[in-house]
Amino acid sequence: MQEALKYVEENKEKFIEELKEYLRIPSVSAASEHKKNMIECAKFVQRKLKEAGVKKTKIFKTEKHPLVYGEWLGAKGKPTVLIYGHYDVQPPEPLELWTTPPFEPEIRNGQIYARGADDNKGQNFIHIKAVEAFTKTLGKLPVNVKFILEGEEEVGSESIAKFLKTNKSLLKCDAVLISDTSLYDKGIPTINYGLRGLTYAEVEVTGPNRDLHSGSYGGAVANPINVLAKMIAKLHDENGKVTIPGFYKNVKKLSKKEKELIRKLNFSDTKMARDLKVRELAGEKGFTTLERLWARPTLDCNGIYGGYTGEGAKTVLPSKATAKISMRLVPNQHPKEIFRAFSKYIKSIAPKSVKVKVTEMHGGFPIAFSLNDKAIKAGAKAVSKAFGKETVFTREGGSIPIVVDFVKVLKAPVVLMGFGLDSDNIHSPNEHFSLDSFFKGVYSSIYFMDEFSRSK
Amino acid sequence: MQEALKYVEENKEKFIEELKEYLRIPSVSAASEHKKNMIECAKFVQRKLKEAGVKKTKIFKTEKHPLVYGEWLGAKGKPTVLIYGHYDVQPPEPLELWTTPPFEPEIRNGQIYARGADDNKGQNFIHIKAVEAFTKTLGKLPVNVKFILEGEEEVGSESIAKFLKTNKSLLKCDAVLISDTSLYDKGIPTINYGLRGLTYAEVEVTGPNRDLHSGSYGGAVANPINVLAKMIAKLHDENGKVTIPGFYKNVKKLSKKEKELIRKLNFSDTKMARDLKVRELAGEKGFTTLERLWARPTLDCNGIYGGYTGEGAKTVLPSKATAKISMRLVPNQHPKEIFRAFSKYIKSIAPKSVKVKVTEMHGGFPIAFSLNDKAIKAGAKAVSKAFGKETVFTREGGSIPIVVDFVKVLKAPVVLMGFGLDSDNIHSPNEHFSLDSFFKGVYSSIYFMDEFSRSK
Repeated sequence: MQEALKYVEENKEKFIEELKEYLRIPSVSAASEHKKNMIECAKFVQRKLKEAGVKKTKIFKTEKHPLVYGEWLGAKGKPTVLIYGHYDVQPPEPLELWTTPPFEPEIRNGQIYARGADDNKGQNFIHIKAVEAFTKTLGKLPVNVKFILEGEEEVGSESIAKFLKTNKSLLKCDAVLISDTSLYDKGIPTINYGLRGLTYAEVEVTGPNRDLHSGSYGGAVANPINVLAKMIAKLHDENGKVTIPGFYKNVKKLSKKEKELIRKLNFSDTKMARDLKVRELAGEKGFTTLERLWARPTLDCNGIYGGYTGEGAKTVLPSKATAKISMRLVPNQHPKEIFRAFSKYIKSIAPKSVKVKVTEMHGGFPIAFSLNDKAIKAGAKAVSKAFGKETVFTREGGSIPIVVDFVKVLKAPVVLMGFGLDSDNIHSPNEHFSLDSFFKGVYSSIYFMDEFSRSK
Repeated sequence: MQEALKYVEENKEKFIEELKEYLRIPSVSAASEHKKNMIECAKFVQRKLKEAGVKKTKIFKTEKHPLVYGEWLGAKGKPTVLIYGHYDVQPPEPLELWTTPPFEPEIRNGQIYARGADDNKGQNFIHIKAVEAFTKTLGKLPVNVKFILEGEEEVGSESIAKFLKTNKSLLKCDAVLISDTSLYDKGIPTINYGLRGLTYAEVEVTGPNRDLHSGSYGGAVANPINVLAKMIAKLHDENGKVTIPGFYKNVKKLSKKEKELIRKLNFSDTKMARDLKVRELAGEKGFTTLERLWARPTLDCNGIYGGYTGEGAKTVLPSKATAKISMRLVPNQHPKEIFRAFSKYIKSIAPKSVKVKVTEMHGGFPIAFSLNDKAIKAGAKAVSKAFGKETVFTREGGSIPIVVDFVKVLKAPVVLMGFGLDSDNIHSPNEHFSLDSFFKGVYSSIYFMDEFSRSK
C-alpha cells in the first residue's frame, strides 16, 4: 500500500492535469445543447478507468445520458466495493459572476475553480486515481472494485434508478462508496452515516367557487388563505413539535453514543445564526440544532400561493389557496404512512366551509447506517489516517435518493465519504474544490480499500 | 309632478332610442384607442343635458378623461341636489362571450343588453330624463340640480377627486344623488345608506438571508411561510373575531331599528352558500351574515406568496413570505388608526427568529348615513312610490371612494338610489339592465326631487 501512496505523491501534477481535462468538458445534463458533451464526458471517464487498470468497462445507453460502468474483480475472496459518482454538472449560469470561465479550470490559493470541481467530478476522480495508484504499483487492488458513473444526477437520476433494478447482479457488492458530500469542517475527516427521508405533499383549499370581491363578501364566507394559514399553524405545537397524530411513533431515538458524538462536534448555533442573518435559530424544543437537523423529523412549507400576489393591492377574496408542505423523515418513519397520517390530519382540521385536496408529490425513505457496520468502520479509519485526525460522524438533513435505492436493491451499506466543503459553491458561480482535500481523498480511498479488504 | 310622470309614460320609446345612442359609444376609459370616444361621449352627455333643459353646461378637461358639468339653479330657496354618474364603461372583452355585440344595444325579454347598460349609462341617464320630464312639462324643476359626470370611474376616479377639492363651491349642494348600486332584489325599492371602509397592508416576513435547502436546514431555522401562517392564524380567535387590540374599540353598533330592518330582509344563508358552492358560510359569531357584511369590520388575506409555487415539488426553505391583508372598516373606525394597531400587533406576535415589515397600501373611510337624514328619507319615499312597495335599507360591504370624498368635501349626505341587479353582469359579458327598472328609476328620480323640495 505504501507504494500506492507514494505513486500519488509522485503524480500530483499529472492528476491535476487530468482533472482539468475532465473539468473542461461542459457536461451539463440539463441542457440539450450539451448532449454531445455528455457522450464525450462518458467516453473520457471510460478512458480514465481503463488507464487506471479497470480493463472491463462498458458505456450503457439510457433514455437520457449514458452510464459508465467498469469492474476489476481480481481480488478473489475479497469484498467488492461499488464506487458511484456522477460526471454531469449543474448549469454554470449566471456566467458573469464567475471570476474565470466555468469550463476553464484554474488554480488559485490551492483551490481548483470550475463547474463540477467539487460536485462531482473532483470527488469521483479521487477513486479512479486511487485505483490507478494500486494497479500501477502493485498490479492489483486489495478489494474487488466496480464503478458506476451516471450523467443524470443533476436532473433526477431516473436512468440509473431503472438500471439498478434490472442489473442487480452486475452491481452486486458488499459496500457502496460515494464521495458526494462534505467534510464537517475544513480538514476534519468525516463519515456521513445517515440521511433524512421525505414526504412531499400539496394542499389545496377551495372556498367559494370563484374569486370574490373582498368588500362584498368579506366576513360572510371562509377565506381559503386564512383557513390554510390556520391549518398550517396547527401543524406545529407551541414547542415546535409536529402535531400530526402518530408522526413520531416510529422515530428511532439517537443512542447515547450518537448523542455524544454530536456533542463533541461543538456545533455553534451562534455561527449558523450569524451566517443566515437571523437573530436566533428555531425548531423543536428539547433537541440541539444538529439533533433537529439529522435525527428529528420536521415539517416545512416549501411554497404557498393564493389570491393576488402582484404589485399593489387588489381586494380579492380568492377561491383557492395552495401550499406545498414537505416533511423530512428519519428512521424508521415510512414516507407513505406519514403521507397518509398528514393527509388524514389536514382534512380533519379543515372547517366545513372549505374543501381540501391533498396530493402526494413524492417521497423517499430515511436511512441511517450502524456505526458498527464494517464498511462504515473501514471508512472512518481510512479518512482518519488520511487526514491524521479523529473521524467525525455526521448525518445529513437532506435526502440522496440514489443512496436509498442502493441499500434497497443491493442490500449493501453505503459509505458516504465526502471531501467537499459547504463553502465550495456547488450549484453556484465560482465552484471550487481544495486540491489538498482532493489528494487527502485519494489517500482516503486507498486506505479504505486496504481497510475494507481485511473486513471479510 | 303628474305632468312629468305622464311625459315619461308618453316618451318611453324616445328615451330608449336615446339610451341606445348613448350605449353605442364605446367609452372604454381603460383603452387609449377609445380616447376619441370618451370625448364623443362627454359631448353626447352635454347635449342630452342641454336637451333636458340644463342650459348651463361645461366640459372640464382633465389629465385623463373630461368631466361633464351642468346646472339648473332656478328653484330659489329650494335645496340643491348634485347628481353624480359616470359615462365610462369597463372593457367589453372577452367579446366572444357576448350574445350580441357590446356596443350594439339590443332588447331581449325587457332587458337592454350592452356594455354600460347598468354600469353606469343606464343608471345615470335616468336622472337626465327625470329632469327633462320636469322641464318639458312644467318648465322648471322642484329643486336646484347640478350634474357631474366623470369618465374615469372604471380606472380610479383620480380626476374627479382632484376636481372636487378645487371646485367645492361649484359643486356645493344639500345632497348628492347617485344611482350606481343595486336593488336588494328584483322589484324591491332600495336605499343604500352605508359603505365599509378599508385598510390594506402588506406583511413581509424574512427568515434566513437566502433561500435554503429544506433538507439541509429544515428544523434548524424558522421557516417564514410557517411563521407567517401562524401570525395570520392569530389574527382571528375561535369565534372569528379579529384579535388586534383596539380593533373593535370605535365600532358603532347597529341600532335596534337597523337590526330589525336587516331581519326583515329575510336574507338566505342557504341561497348564498348554494350560489358560492360552499357547504356553509363563515364569519364572526354572534352576527347574521348581513350584519357581518354591512356593519362588522373584517380581516381577509387578499394574497399570500412564498417559496416555490410552480408545478411539482422543490425542497426550498424560503427566505421570505409575503401576505396582502386588508381590513374592511365600519363607522367609526379610522383607517390610519387601524393600520397602526394592525402593524403593532403583527410585529408583537412575530417570533425573534424572523424580521417583519409592514407596509400600508391604501385606506378609505367607512360611512353610514342616518336613516333620519332628510335626503335619505326623501330617497326612501321616492323609490317606494315608484315601485309601489316598502323601501328596504341596505348597506354595502365594499367601498365607493367617491362617496366618502363627496361627504368629506361637500359635507352633504349621499343618497345611493341604485336600480341595477347583482345579476346584471356588470364588468362581464352580456351586461344588461331591466327597462322596467330604468323607468321606475326615472319615476324615482322625479319623486325624489319632489320629496326633497319639501324638506327645506
